[in-house]
Amino acid sequence: MKLASFTIDGRQSWGVVSGEAIADVGAVLHDRFADLKAVLAADALAAIPAAAAKADSIPLARITWLPVVPNPDKILCIGLNYEMHRQETGRSEVENPTVFARYANTQIGHLADIIRPKVSTDLDYEGELAVIIGKAGRYIENADARDHIAGYACYNDGSLRDFQRHTHQFTPGKNFPGTGAFGPWMATPDELGDLSGLRLQTRVNGQVVQDARFSQMIFDIPTQIAYCSRFTRLEPGDVIATGTPGGVGAKRNPPLWLKPGDLVEVEIDRLGTLSNGVRDEI
Amino acid sequence: MKLASFTIDGRQSWGVVSGEAIADVGAVLHDRFADLKAVLAADALAAIPAAAAKADSIPLARITWLPVVPNPDKILCIGLNYEMHRQETGRSEVENPTVFARYANTQIGHLADIIRPKVSTDLDYEGELAVIIGKAGRYIENADARDHIAGYACYNDGSLRDFQRHTHQFTPGKNFPGTGAFGPWMATPDELGDLSGLRLQTRVNGQVVQDARFSQMIFDIPTQIAYCSRFTRLEPGDVIATGTPGGVGAKRNPPLWLKPGDLVEVEIDRLGTLSNGVRDEI
Repeated sequence: MKLASFTIDGRQSWGVVSGEAIADVGAVLHDRFADLKAVLAADALAAIPAAAAKADSIPLARITWLPVVPNPDKILCIGLNYEMHRQETGRSEVENPTVFARYANTQIGHLADIIRPKVSTDLDYEGELAVIIGKAGRYIENADARDHIAGYACYNDGSLRDFQRHTHQFTPGKNFPGTGAFGPWMATPDELGDLSGLRLQTRVNGQVVQDARFSQMIFDIPTQIAYCSRFTRLEPGDVIATGTPGGVGAKRNPPLWLKPGDLVEVEIDRLGTLSNGVRDEI
Repeated sequence: MKLASFTIDGRQSWGVVSGEAIADVGAVLHDRFADLKAVLAADALAAIPAAAAKADSIPLARITWLPVVPNPDKILCIGLNYEMHRQETGRSEVENPTVFARYANTQIGHLADIIRPKVSTDLDYEGELAVIIGKAGRYIENADARDHIAGYACYNDGSLRDFQRHTHQFTPGKNFPGTGAFGPWMATPDELGDLSGLRLQTRVNGQVVQDARFSQMIFDIPTQIAYCSRFTRLEPGDVIATGTPGGVGAKRNPPLWLKPGDLVEVEIDRLGTLSNGVRDEI
């Protein structure tokens, strides 16, 4: 099942993507669930197929895509989680995942433009696999971590590298509005099966700039979930962005900065392609 | 004017502190404002005195204090903002403030216990001045920054130092539940006047462990507001924790870790004293 959040005619909803249409399940279940996060919080994914059968089908071309979860409590980003990226940044090996925070107000959906802000041109892409939490939990064991996953999505952890490097804390460079692209949809785990062999590719104007398999992660997804849950309670709708592979624009010679008019795509096998243009802040 | 959030008899409210009582303004204005953040968002501080005159007066001893703003969109913490603390941590000088994020779910109010989690005993205090944002803004100039301040409060940016140092990103060590103490109240700027000469003291079981004046900040408050507003839109109710002075427990010999039964106080001239016990996570 592929679940997406969207707006149509000024109304916010969510639904099930099937081919070139989306079943407007939010319109059917709006008395029970305000949004997709509320469905996850109620552990109600099983109620969706019956509601989808009654829902209006809307052509995808008519909707405006929102971030898959527009309002997560927390977006926890894992840094330096592929060896090639760790090496290109010159960072030391560490025994625990590197975690930083992105605020929900930075997110955009599929086909929205990434915003290059007035104060920087060092705009970089980071294609990633996002994990969406279903079941809340604290002190989750690695062996139980998969029970807490509602689904997966493509993420572009867009970064302003000069602000990221102003100090040793990444927060400023990772929290500009319009830089966290999340979509088009989340796929439930049954859609993807075993993740390890799946490939992530990031393309800028059609040129492949990142290309990796999830088996190359330094800390696997259960370890990321377990570690994060040691310091915070994971909530339904929380997002863990699982880190980007090597090939970021900042480490190319010359650097490859995103500029207005570019097209950035993050494609993950069996999951789909997240596409975003780039424009200057107005 | 001193404004606080609280619960009484299971009901959440907010009001004006005066002596040993609080006027339950939330009960008078609940049709207009859900909470103190909503009052700030409506720029409605001027409506409070008339409502306070009609409100029930509740003895402070009867309320349970909440974090001043229980639900800020963002808590932006400034690190290494006093020279003595920068030196004790061995960090280099930088040209911009160091910023990291704390989530709202980590906060507690005055008189609540700070929680020492199951997974660490390296629990440290950080007494700080918190700035509460009133007027929203992006790209705020230093000269205009004070127009965006609704008030000030005491903050204890409680930190699990081992988790903070697992990698170069502070996020895990700064986001344990029950570690961000915020209160008892916020004072509007007229209560404090010129901040530069005011003193902040942190005490553990009565022993002074931090003692500084705000004139010793490396980046002053307008600079912090201006910098944060370059990468994010500041919203009403957002909190900027302005950094802690030297004297943290981790840098003492031997280290001074907080333990169950301890009392931690953060006192700021003309503002008040934030007091919290410490207990183990159950």
